[in-house]
Amino acid sequence: MYHNNYIHEMLSKNKVKFIISLQKKKTRDEENLFVIEGDKLVKEFLSAKKNVRLLAAKPEFLNSIPAELLSLAEEIETISYEELKHISTLKTPHNALAVVEKPEPVSDYDEILDQLSVLLDCVQDPGNLGTIIRAAAWFGIKTIVCSNDSVDVYNPKVIQASMGAFMHVNVCYNDLKEFLGETLKRNLPVFGTVLNGESIYDHKLDYKGVILLGNESKGISEELVPYITDKIIIPGPGESRPGIESLNVSMAASIVFSEFYRRSK
Amino acid sequence: MYHNNYIHEMLSKNKVKFIISLQKKKTRDEENLFVIEGDKLVKEFLSAKKNVRLLAAKPEFLNSIPAELLSLAEEIETISYEELKHISTLKTPHNALAVVEKPEPVSDYDEILDQLSVLLDCVQDPGNLGTIIRAAAWFGIKTIVCSNDSVDVYNPKVIQASMGAFMHVNVCYNDLKEFLGETLKRNLPVFGTVLNGESIYDHKLDYKGVILLGNESKGISEELVPYITDKIIIPGPGESRPGIESLNVSMAASIVFSEFYRRSK
Repeated sequence: MYHNNYIHEMLSKNKVKFIISLQKKKTRDEENLFVIEGDKLVKEFLSAKKNVRLLAAKPEFLNSIPAELLSLAEEIETISYEELKHISTLKTPHNALAVVEKPEPVSDYDEILDQLSVLLDCVQDPGNLGTIIRAAAWFGIKTIVCSNDSVDVYNPKVIQASMGAFMHVNVCYNDLKEFLGETLKRNLPVFGTVLNGESIYDHKLDYKGVILLGNESKGISEELVPYITDKIIIPGPGESRPGIESLNVSMAASIVFSEFYRRSK
Repeated sequence: MYHNNYIHEMLSKNKVKFIISLQKKKTRDEENLFVIEGDKLVKEFLSAKKNVRLLAAKPEFLNSIPAELLSLAEEIETISYEELKHISTLKTPHNALAVVEKPEPVSDYDEILDQLSVLLDCVQDPGNLGTIIRAAAWFGIKTIVCSNDSVDVYNPKVIQASMGAFMHVNVCYNDLKEFLGETLKRNLPVFGTVLNGESIYDHKLDYKGVILLGNESKGISEELVPYITDKIIIPGPGESRPGIESLNVSMAASIVFSEFYRRSK
């Protein structure tokens, strides 16, 4: 059993309202908070000693967690399935959700450019960003720099799609022109997937510099193309057939990261 | 301008009802029909001379299509934005949708096993199946055999996610145990992604046999594992870190297909 004098019996209307308001980017930015959902993710957050401002969970969940982990949450509220369903962005809510603090992103050029990083130019779909974060974490890529017009990493759908991997990847937002300028100043390669590129299987790949990936339908913006030093493509026999437009950006990212990783070994 | 005496001015209530009923697998199976949405996809279907039973589109769309293409549709109806919104499974409908005939899938063992094919064991998420079809088309894989409990390829979300690629891939449903038995009888390899596999970068890959991919959360079913002759994994430094569970099945598929393709060249 959990025995914490700060466990409240019911979520107040104001708190419900507050948690729901965090579905909006504006509120997330103002409060520097976001919401995570799911038993596993919440447990991982507590275990990683990240700042959990409010934990709202069903009694079953609270009973299943060691007291020393629970004590890391600033505030705990029990919540019913109906309340969870009301607050959750998921069709089928889990047993727990938490309001947590945004980590301070690393945005120092030298630190980021010390290893291979990924740049996303106006990626719009939350599922794609989540999947790209998951692939980056798998292949040990530490930083993703998104253009300022990309989807917010703390969008609930991004968090959901990344399946906890966002805890292991530094995602920051920046002016990509400026960032690419800094990359070139340091004589580092900029790999970009463009139509007239060389096969990624044949092209020389370094495990340093940046991989630039473009928007879902428009690709890499025209103003960023001149910064690319290494034009690459993922070749395939489907390339030239009508109806097989392209790989989507998260599939392309997975394949590119895998190929960089393979070649680095 | 389009001049077809079979263009009706408004979609009847019965037809609206019929199109919506095709959102259900049961109706799609009974009628042997499914719905495609989107200007580009409908145009490609007409251009490929596939059987279009009913084309429902805004006048702008009909005006933009050559008459000889339009004449390939058995029936054409003009439709308003409001009607489209009502019928469509998309939040923002396109200008055209069509009721089309399901192609006859190739399910002959010899024909399928004549080249590298993909087997999906209980893939449930329509977005995943759509993405896997897209990746298969890109890398020239001709057939995907789904277990009978996999999501239906004619589910509107699968069609949407595959972005027209489903026109180029033979997707059939079968008992995978039986299919794998036939594969082994022909002395062909069965590649399966499992935890204790050998790195896909190092393992010998043939561009023949089958690639077996498992369910989103449960992986490959226990009863199918004994059929795997070649156990492979996609290695990554993220493997052993908490919170980085795995790559999802469509990312894994993209990477595996890419690696098979690279090694076949």
